[in-house]
Amino acid sequence: MAIRMHDLAGVEADRRFSPFCWRARMALAHKGLEVETVPWRFTEKDKLPTPNDGRVPVIVDGDKIVHDSSAIADYLEERYADRPSLFPGAAARGLTKFVQNWTETVLQVGLIRLVLRDIYNHIGPKDQEYFRQSREARFGTSLENVVKDREERLPEFRASLDPLRRTVERQKFVSGDGPAYADYVVFGAFKWAQAVSDFELVKPDDPIFAWRGRMLDLYGGLARKSPGYGG
Amino acid sequence: MAIRMHDLAGVEADRRFSPFCWRARMALAHKGLEVETVPWRFTEKDKLPTPNDGRVPVIVDGDKIVHDSSAIADYLEERYADRPSLFPGAAARGLTKFVQNWTETVLQVGLIRLVLRDIYNHIGPKDQEYFRQSREARFGTSLENVVKDREERLPEFRASLDPLRRTVERQKFVSGDGPAYADYVVFGAFKWAQAVSDFELVKPDDPIFAWRGRMLDLYGGLARKSPGYGG
Repeated sequence: MAIRMHDLAGVEADRRFSPFCWRARMALAHKGLEVETVPWRFTEKDKLPTPNDGRVPVIVDGDKIVHDSSAIADYLEERYADRPSLFPGAAARGLTKFVQNWTETVLQVGLIRLVLRDIYNHIGPKDQEYFRQSREARFGTSLENVVKDREERLPEFRASLDPLRRTVERQKFVSGDGPAYADYVVFGAFKWAQAVSDFELVKPDDPIFAWRGRMLDLYGGLARKSPGYGG
Repeated sequence: MAIRMHDLAGVEADRRFSPFCWRARMALAHKGLEVETVPWRFTEKDKLPTPNDGRVPVIVDGDKIVHDSSAIADYLEERYADRPSLFPGAAARGLTKFVQNWTETVLQVGLIRLVLRDIYNHIGPKDQEYFRQSREARFGTSLENVVKDREERLPEFRASLDPLRRTVERQKFVSGDGPAYADYVVFGAFKWAQAVSDFELVKPDDPIFAWRGRMLDLYGGLARKSPGYGG
């Protein structure tokens, strides 16, 4: 039986834009596991399998329910230990945490201030209300204000990607010759943005652009087939 | 026969302050290899084993001469494959490059603007002249100007360490339970600063402070025994 996964969706059910869900989707594909995704919206807290923490991804694998993308990666790695590893080798899990912490403190923090308003454009009215209220409370200003100087902030954002840029300029994936969980963590953030925004995060001649293309191509174009803009 | 390594030294021969040499020193210790270091100064370009690129580290292992810290790590990993790995597992080398690229584009770039003038205080007159000329040309201003607002830049520098901080808050080493080359790369930058400067880069209650302590303790306190300030 396929694993079931609740996955954040826009007003169009097939537009999937959670960075954390993309980590899980790519990890499932890496393990060669079939998955049946259930579109889920911000305001459907009561529709998640229990236990959950009110967020996605949540996966149901037989009688096992796992929430939180990191917990899902750990679960898949242990439960499907005979399949390709998400953390190949003794140091990979530790090092992947560094990449994840960079993604969460630099990349995603930079991205949200570029694409926040674009998310709003892709969700239904009820979610829009929830999203505006919760995000405006978090940022202390309107969605529009958060992104209004995004053109000016773009050079600094692009400069902040230097560690990633140098890495994928000299090797195919963040994890080396082949992709592993660290790639999915970083890619989740880019796919999140690309799913909702046509804002040009990186130029076509940026090594990150080419790496993102390689990621979109993985597993039969899994992420490329999911609605998004540009590349 | 012990490996010989040319190692950047201050006016006191045992003060070693090259981040790249520290990477190599720690990597040699990780492999359990004996090393005899040769103190080397900026202005002794003609005293390096050939081939070299005018910089340290350069190691001589029997009839093999290797320069550049990354090339040295690769050489040691291959030549001493039966000893503890610097890159444990298939993904470690790739992921370590990400950590290295972060170290070189964020950490070292931030650090140099805090401790540049302190380096000058620890080198001999001839090196001081070379150092002032070459660094002032690179920065386009005096050594004193580069660091003059370091107190004001400190909060931003400390914030830039978030990926490292979160990582070593939740695991003992950047590489996980045990140290590997990624740890030596990051530590090289901190030991570089600590060798020449009493400027408080991180507070004692910062998880990075504790991690740096663990690094200083490794291999019988190898790095702790080498002259430095604080920690």
